[in-house]
Amino acid sequence: MSQTAYRTQHATEVTEALVGRKVTLAGWVDRRRDHGGVAFIDLRDSTGLVQVVIYDEEVARPLRSEFVIQVVGEVRLRPEGNENDHLATGRIEVVAEDITILAKSDALPFQVSTALENESENKLPGEDVRLKYRYLDLRRPSMQHNLKLRSDMAKAARHALEDMDFTEVETPTFIKSTPEGARDFLVPARLVPGSWYALPQSPQLLKQLLMVSGVERYYQLARCYRDEDFRADRQPEFTQLDMEMAYVDQEDVMAMAEKVISAIWKSAGYDIKLPIDRISWQDAMDKYGSDKPDLRFGNQIVELTEYFKDTPFRVFQAPYVGAVVYKGAADLPRRKFDAWQDWARQRGAKGLAYVQFSADGNLKGPVAKNLSDAERDGLREAVGAEPGDAVFFAAGARESSQLLLGAVRVEIARRQGLLDPKKFAFTWVVDFPLFKPTDDPDDDDVAVGHSKWTSMHHPFTMPSADWLDRFDKDPEHAMSDSYDIVCNGEEMGGGSVRIHRDDIQNRVLDVLGITKEEADEKFGFLLEAFKYGAPPHAGIALGWDRTVSILAGADSIRDVIAFPKAGGGRDPLTGAPAPISDEQRAETGVDYDPEEDED
Amino acid sequence: MSQTAYRTQHATEVTEALVGRKVTLAGWVDRRRDHGGVAFIDLRDSTGLVQVVIYDEEVARPLRSEFVIQVVGEVRLRPEGNENDHLATGRIEVVAEDITILAKSDALPFQVSTALENESENKLPGEDVRLKYRYLDLRRPSMQHNLKLRSDMAKAARHALEDMDFTEVETPTFIKSTPEGARDFLVPARLVPGSWYALPQSPQLLKQLLMVSGVERYYQLARCYRDEDFRADRQPEFTQLDMEMAYVDQEDVMAMAEKVISAIWKSAGYDIKLPIDRISWQDAMDKYGSDKPDLRFGNQIVELTEYFKDTPFRVFQAPYVGAVVYKGAADLPRRKFDAWQDWARQRGAKGLAYVQFSADGNLKGPVAKNLSDAERDGLREAVGAEPGDAVFFAAGARESSQLLLGAVRVEIARRQGLLDPKKFAFTWVVDFPLFKPTDDPDDDDVAVGHSKWTSMHHPFTMPSADWLDRFDKDPEHAMSDSYDIVCNGEEMGGGSVRIHRDDIQNRVLDVLGITKEEADEKFGFLLEAFKYGAPPHAGIALGWDRTVSILAGADSIRDVIAFPKAGGGRDPLTGAPAPISDEQRAETGVDYDPEEDED
Repeated sequence: MSQTAYRTQHATEVTEALVGRKVTLAGWVDRRRDHGGVAFIDLRDSTGLVQVVIYDEEVARPLRSEFVIQVVGEVRLRPEGNENDHLATGRIEVVAEDITILAKSDALPFQVSTALENESENKLPGEDVRLKYRYLDLRRPSMQHNLKLRSDMAKAARHALEDMDFTEVETPTFIKSTPEGARDFLVPARLVPGSWYALPQSPQLLKQLLMVSGVERYYQLARCYRDEDFRADRQPEFTQLDMEMAYVDQEDVMAMAEKVISAIWKSAGYDIKLPIDRISWQDAMDKYGSDKPDLRFGNQIVELTEYFKDTPFRVFQAPYVGAVVYKGAADLPRRKFDAWQDWARQRGAKGLAYVQFSADGNLKGPVAKNLSDAERDGLREAVGAEPGDAVFFAAGARESSQLLLGAVRVEIARRQGLLDPKKFAFTWVVDFPLFKPTDDPDDDDVAVGHSKWTSMHHPFTMPSADWLDRFDKDPEHAMSDSYDIVCNGEEMGGGSVRIHRDDIQNRVLDVLGITKEEADEKFGFLLEAFKYGAPPHAGIALGWDRTVSILAGADSIRDVIAFPKAGGGRDPLTGAPAPISDEQRAETGVDYDPEEDED
Repeated sequence: MSQTAYRTQHATEVTEALVGRKVTLAGWVDRRRDHGGVAFIDLRDSTGLVQVVIYDEEVARPLRSEFVIQVVGEVRLRPEGNENDHLATGRIEVVAEDITILAKSDALPFQVSTALENESENKLPGEDVRLKYRYLDLRRPSMQHNLKLRSDMAKAARHALEDMDFTEVETPTFIKSTPEGARDFLVPARLVPGSWYALPQSPQLLKQLLMVSGVERYYQLARCYRDEDFRADRQPEFTQLDMEMAYVDQEDVMAMAEKVISAIWKSAGYDIKLPIDRISWQDAMDKYGSDKPDLRFGNQIVELTEYFKDTPFRVFQAPYVGAVVYKGAADLPRRKFDAWQDWARQRGAKGLAYVQFSADGNLKGPVAKNLSDAERDGLREAVGAEPGDAVFFAAGARESSQLLLGAVRVEIARRQGLLDPKKFAFTWVVDFPLFKPTDDPDDDDVAVGHSKWTSMHHPFTMPSADWLDRFDKDPEHAMSDSYDIVCNGEEMGGGSVRIHRDDIQNRVLDVLGITKEEADEKFGFLLEAFKYGAPPHAGIALGWDRTVSILAGADSIRDVIAFPKAGGGRDPLTGAPAPISDEQRAETGVDYDPEEDED
């Protein structure tokens, strides 16, 4: 399929087998070199580079970087000694007989050529410039690779789902506002002035309706929308690989998702050992200080609450004390530990207590002198440190202390170079609480409902079987049938068994403090649907941008999205969002006044 | 993959091979019949029906239609004489040992059971009721079939595109307003108060940017949005299978599209003969009175302008006279022909002149007496009619007369039962004009630009090679490199070679009467991108809802969309669109006043 009106071969299809043959190629001038009467062009297309030799100076002279040209020429072996082993086509070259300029290029705002496919790309401009000239940025091999990888991953996922008899269903994006913990983007409906559509935060309710509709296995790579204040790595629109199954339990969904994930990684050459390990939410918090633990390395958090139960040190007289070992860091200079204090304060902590076990067995560091003799003597063994290690502590409320230690644990690993992007450590996190308190200052989700409890996942999550009778009597301890899939410290996705009975759904809404009127208005259609025989169902969704960025080893999800938004939802390329004309505004109906209409 | 927590087999997997074995099934109670102490349940799941026998009246009594149940039982052969050859499982039944009610159902608003898969579905309620209870409507086998077909078609198209090395790229839906002949849906951008995103009418500009970005073969099943006054079979959001290629010409794209279309039809069991025939736009208008001719049948329009050039009949003293034969209709009663007059007037015509050639060779009908003897004598041969046929005429402006005759031609075929939904007649329509006049009253597209010319396809369409130098000097006759794919009288899709040079693009915009300032504001980013080496490129898009409805033989695209909108963009299921709260409105920023902000 390489042959088109403009070429007979792609660049890297020009192999030694074609020596002596005439070829027609088309692509960009990656770069030009002149050597006394002979010019060499690296011609770049979607497959890579090939060298073109031009003996006619008049033909070569006008050619500039990123000109689009068509080359007719004969393939020959490069002269001995001129081979380039870094190039797939490094043993041949094409002697130009005819060159047509298909399109010219102005001087470039930044360098696109990478000359050799493996050349470093460290001379990139700032991200706003990259995004403004995204069509140049995307020409770079690493971005081409990311786009191709994303496409290949979707292909692998779809093939796996097709093999499991899933039906792809497209759900609407003009819907009613859904209550899922974030703000909706809204679209005025011109034909019903004063009314608005909401764009879906996810197809959650729609895919549940599909289960009630008899589609037993549904999937969709779905565009979703959340109007959030831009956090570092979020986009106003994003994609999720959305899956739902009827007549299944948690185990069925997890086994299915493992097949999909394994197929995706397999398509990039990685074998994932199945089944994927599991850890309970509580264990993840206790051992890794995170509900999405990075398991590429060990170094678990050590709880010391019991150890310090009679401590004279005021700071450690707390509901929770824990520690993380910093291997081999005992002899770091003081200013390094001071920098850790700044790091902790930037995360909202008061500081980061630490001790150092020097190689000779002495205990040093600011905390040491505050401890009792017994505490000092047993400490190294209690935390599992060796001479030469340092140890960081956190004390206070259990969850916030664990989260701090979890972040310390990852930051230590980062500084030690343990976060290998080519290594993938998957885990399921299971046994989640059904509810969480609404008064958590660290949680910036918008609470659904008006009580002191909100959903840990979402309001449609099934309580686990042994809590079905009493989850509303003890919301603090009630557990749910839900599960997150985590890779390398990132939440790749999550799901749950859903409620399929209106009596259970109504009791959950009661706990959340959602009145019957409000429930009816917001998702009465789902409650109504449950009245007509809803099969038990469960599902999962993968955050697709995140999943691609993990497998790509990308620094940001923006590097795996063709045309992402910059901060504040701006698009430096097109200038969106932009003001609209008075005429457009009038047509949207947003200024519709029903009283005027009555006149 | 049938085995899950709730079942060992699907209904239709219970075959004679399982006789004597215990199975666990789950699904809906399709219907229940009682026969003196024994109850029979048709259990329905996504694969079909299986008969369950219940000997315990207490167990059977509570079961109602559309209850969701789980059945454990033993498979046995049906008693001789009780087999049902209409059912895949008609030779066996499952004797229930244990039945669990998984979910109950209220009395149904309309009948869902089809009892036998092939039972007629003629007792459907009105469409608003079907849409309000869409989850019940979708349980019907014909709708299940449509959803599955749509999924299978996407799978076939994707596999074909994957085989041709296409990369799937997701393009953003929060973009700048694009000038494509319809109104944009708009989304207020909360973080940039007073500014709005537009939802894409198509990914046209974005896919062209991808070509400039080095993605040589792109595809996407893309959601698109057009805020139109609802015509019969339009939706505010719709899907297109969008494809674009670099370094190709029209022939390359058409050959590629034929492979995709052929793969799609093949997946449903139909072989399409390739290459698909072509007809020029002018021929299509002349012979079929349509730019999307239905070629399932012949009966071409006959032009009689020359034949009637000296006619005494005032009505036929027109720039164009044409005729369509109505085979065997000479003896239809007068009231039938009167009804045709009404039909024509409903389409905006003044009426429909006709003659009848009776079996004995006599010429009858209101027109006959107005013609000259010579005209009468030669007429039957001139129009190619036989004794017993009737003939309809249209006279007036060429294009509107041809459109009327084209509609007559299809309506005749419809009444003659020639529009077989299982027969598929494809054609390419090629050689389109580049521009069309903006003053055409029959055309309800929004003109792009402010001149007397607007684009026939869109402003990014390449003039054909022999018009490149002079298309702006003679816009009336200039031709373009564009092509539509038509099936059974419906436009399935279309595409064109695109402009890839800013000089040509600027000349086209000049013809359309778009000023430089306006062009820069609306799609300056594309013109800018063309300055940095844009490869020649071309593409095509298939209207996916339409394509599915053609292959499904559906009456409406709403029958191939899971959750479509009703008239006016309303969703009877969820109640969208709906008013929003004052708080939500405040957050959208639509009431932002920059002057207030300065205070």
